[in-house]
Amino acid sequence: MDTELIRRLGHVVGDAGLVLGEAEQAPYVEDWLRKWRGRTPVVVRPRNTTEVSAVMRLCRQTGTPVVPQGGNTGMSGGAAPDDSGAQVILSLNRMRRIREVDAVNNTITVDAGVLLADVQRAAREAGRFFPLSLGAEGSCTIGGNLATNAGGTAVLRYGNTRELALGLEVVLPDGRVWSGLRGLRKDNTGYDLRGLFIGSEGTLGVITGAVLKLYALARGRVTAWVGVDTPGAVVGLLSHMQALCGERLTAFEMMSAHCLDLVQAHVSGAVQPLDGRHRYYALVELSDTAPEALTELLEQGLAQAMEAGLADDAVIAASETQSQALWRLREGISQAQVRAGKAVKHDIALPISRLAAFIEEADAALAEDFAGLPIVNFGHVGDGNLHYNVLLPLDVAAAEYGRLTAALNRRVHDLVAQRGGSISAEHGVGQLRRDELRRYKSTVEMDLMLLIKRALDPDQLMNPGKLL
Amino acid sequence: MDTELIRRLGHVVGDAGLVLGEAEQAPYVEDWLRKWRGRTPVVVRPRNTTEVSAVMRLCRQTGTPVVPQGGNTGMSGGAAPDDSGAQVILSLNRMRRIREVDAVNNTITVDAGVLLADVQRAAREAGRFFPLSLGAEGSCTIGGNLATNAGGTAVLRYGNTRELALGLEVVLPDGRVWSGLRGLRKDNTGYDLRGLFIGSEGTLGVITGAVLKLYALARGRVTAWVGVDTPGAVVGLLSHMQALCGERLTAFEMMSAHCLDLVQAHVSGAVQPLDGRHRYYALVELSDTAPEALTELLEQGLAQAMEAGLADDAVIAASETQSQALWRLREGISQAQVRAGKAVKHDIALPISRLAAFIEEADAALAEDFAGLPIVNFGHVGDGNLHYNVLLPLDVAAAEYGRLTAALNRRVHDLVAQRGGSISAEHGVGQLRRDELRRYKSTVEMDLMLLIKRALDPDQLMNPGKLL
Repeated sequence: MDTELIRRLGHVVGDAGLVLGEAEQAPYVEDWLRKWRGRTPVVVRPRNTTEVSAVMRLCRQTGTPVVPQGGNTGMSGGAAPDDSGAQVILSLNRMRRIREVDAVNNTITVDAGVLLADVQRAAREAGRFFPLSLGAEGSCTIGGNLATNAGGTAVLRYGNTRELALGLEVVLPDGRVWSGLRGLRKDNTGYDLRGLFIGSEGTLGVITGAVLKLYALARGRVTAWVGVDTPGAVVGLLSHMQALCGERLTAFEMMSAHCLDLVQAHVSGAVQPLDGRHRYYALVELSDTAPEALTELLEQGLAQAMEAGLADDAVIAASETQSQALWRLREGISQAQVRAGKAVKHDIALPISRLAAFIEEADAALAEDFAGLPIVNFGHVGDGNLHYNVLLPLDVAAAEYGRLTAALNRRVHDLVAQRGGSISAEHGVGQLRRDELRRYKSTVEMDLMLLIKRALDPDQLMNPGKLL
Repeated sequence: MDTELIRRLGHVVGDAGLVLGEAEQAPYVEDWLRKWRGRTPVVVRPRNTTEVSAVMRLCRQTGTPVVPQGGNTGMSGGAAPDDSGAQVILSLNRMRRIREVDAVNNTITVDAGVLLADVQRAAREAGRFFPLSLGAEGSCTIGGNLATNAGGTAVLRYGNTRELALGLEVVLPDGRVWSGLRGLRKDNTGYDLRGLFIGSEGTLGVITGAVLKLYALARGRVTAWVGVDTPGAVVGLLSHMQALCGERLTAFEMMSAHCLDLVQAHVSGAVQPLDGRHRYYALVELSDTAPEALTELLEQGLAQAMEAGLADDAVIAASETQSQALWRLREGISQAQVRAGKAVKHDIALPISRLAAFIEEADAALAEDFAGLPIVNFGHVGDGNLHYNVLLPLDVAAAEYGRLTAALNRRVHDLVAQRGGSISAEHGVGQLRRDELRRYKSTVEMDLMLLIKRALDPDQLMNPGKLL
């Protein structure tokens, strides 16, 4: 790389804004899963939108490819550079300003580099609620959440990140700034540029700021742990609770008995909430601004479900502490999975009406073609989103891991595609699913995306090798 | 127009699918407001997506511009042809098939030509709720709602049409079909094409089908009519009710005292719900799947609001009949307005936190510059959306109407733009606001939209003269 370019970038962002040494670059060139590792001549860390604009202008002038990066906590390699050593990393991690909290408009305006947990905190301090919530919330940035249209545990009630953003500020590949920071609930003045940039994984521009929706703060929640016999009953229980509770239903998570076994074996302090063993467990949560009758409603719903054969046993958390213990079982799966084996992961979504049949069929297919490999089946059933993972032994050889990953991905994703599902529900495409995207998307859809990519990034400098 | 093209179009859609006579074409070439009237060589009415595709291919081959049309009930002239006589009208009104209702997935899949009221009915028959609701629901089509990203009275709780669609089927300008009819809550596999086509007003392709979200059916609603003294108190009441009631708050509509006067004068059977006179009135509605404590909650909220000086008087409907009577006051404004004068209309949105200051300032500005002209101020305050109209005398001369419309639009829209608002909240741009869009949008945003338009419709055949 041109040392002259690095010098000019330094003029824009200051010395503290350049990361040049190999050791200092390490957290930027490798993702946190340690799956993708690349090289970069320089990590550039602008302090504000004007600096991002100047950086992009310099990169455009010199034909330098740019990899935008937030907290670098993605699951699909979307923020890692390739190993050419030609791609500049544009990190937003110095842009951490909460620009405005507007409690009356129910909006918060933030820099892209603000940590998700800090957005949640600022909302709470204003007596409001920002619903986006996911495992990495203490280290991921809202800009990364927007770039990947992150999902998480609150989608059932509040939608994905795209549904939570009213306005954006984006620096385009040519350095111009689109100031779309509107805090409006209704605005029909042209194409939905906001929605287009959200989920585009840094391939169309750099999101530098956003206006996000806030909601009323719940004044109470109740959580239940439910033992269920079949995937069909899990879905039936979901339908029943939705019809009875409406938007109060804030979470509906599922895990197989095997997941709970793993958590009990590998996570300290994990206690099985029910006496008997059930094939599946659902974590059901209601929350409400007026929570007086919440427990009664949950009890009523679960009693009706048991009568209808949709649930076999259930316990309702009697305190916030017990509620947190139930959530730890759900959240412990990732950690337990890492300790128990090498996971071949699937982040899939299906129409909820086809979820049960998919599970039965996929379980049978894998039992036949991949006998003996344990399935770690859990996820956000309320959104039709399963993390349908398969565990390989911890000491599996790299070549064998690669071979089995490809074969398992193909088997599972083909089944998903046949049922009108998605092979990437909430983790994005990045590098991980890029080739498979071409397999499962129609030519027409790929063409439309490429037309848009070429129109907005004609020099193809934005996050090359990702998504498309 | 080439009679050969008309013959070939007839081969595609059959004789009953062509509208050729002037009298028969009348309902298609003029919008229902009778504001825009154009000419067309032929109205083509395909029966299914394959026929739409064939029609588009023929038009592409012959360089024929196409104006897609749904129920032709738009407010901005987006579905009317120009007077060149060269633009073919592509009406979706024979595509009225409800393709699938999936109660477990909470989705409905429909042809674009299905009437909005029929979508609502099919949802209800399946024990579910489709929330989009607006005055024209008996004659507008869901395709038109999608093309214009329609708003209406349920946006506060459920969002605009864009938020209500999970998947689309679109015929592209070259006749190819994008089959994006996915019924998934989570799908992060590329750019948000769905969001892009929604609200693009027929300028990028023809929406032929959609997968729409369904919701749990409320089992009860309560409605209140509230007298309020100032715009600031109206907004304060909204904030209070949102924090207390959360998503139960289904409607928060506002009207000025003058609006109620008009309704009482011009709509038969309209009865003022409160004894005293108040400067503003709010129509507040809660609904819920578990409605047992709903009235109590509304009473509590209104009592607190009165104590805090946010409301002066209120009445809660004691029955569904009374509730409907309150809604008729709100819905009667359009009719009353037509009888009382010629309205200069504004369909604006503001951040809710700036709404009160806007109203005070706009009222003062118009009182000074346009003294004596009554202001008809009402709207969906819960969405920050006002129909801030101004009444001219019924016998105003056409030239004077034109002059005053331009002057009033400029005055109001400049104030809106200064406060970060939108000059087209829910009615779209069409022909009506096309020139003003250029005034209020940044160059960068206009450029982005034009880049997308040129990429997806390179021959510029889709709905020319609209939006951009």
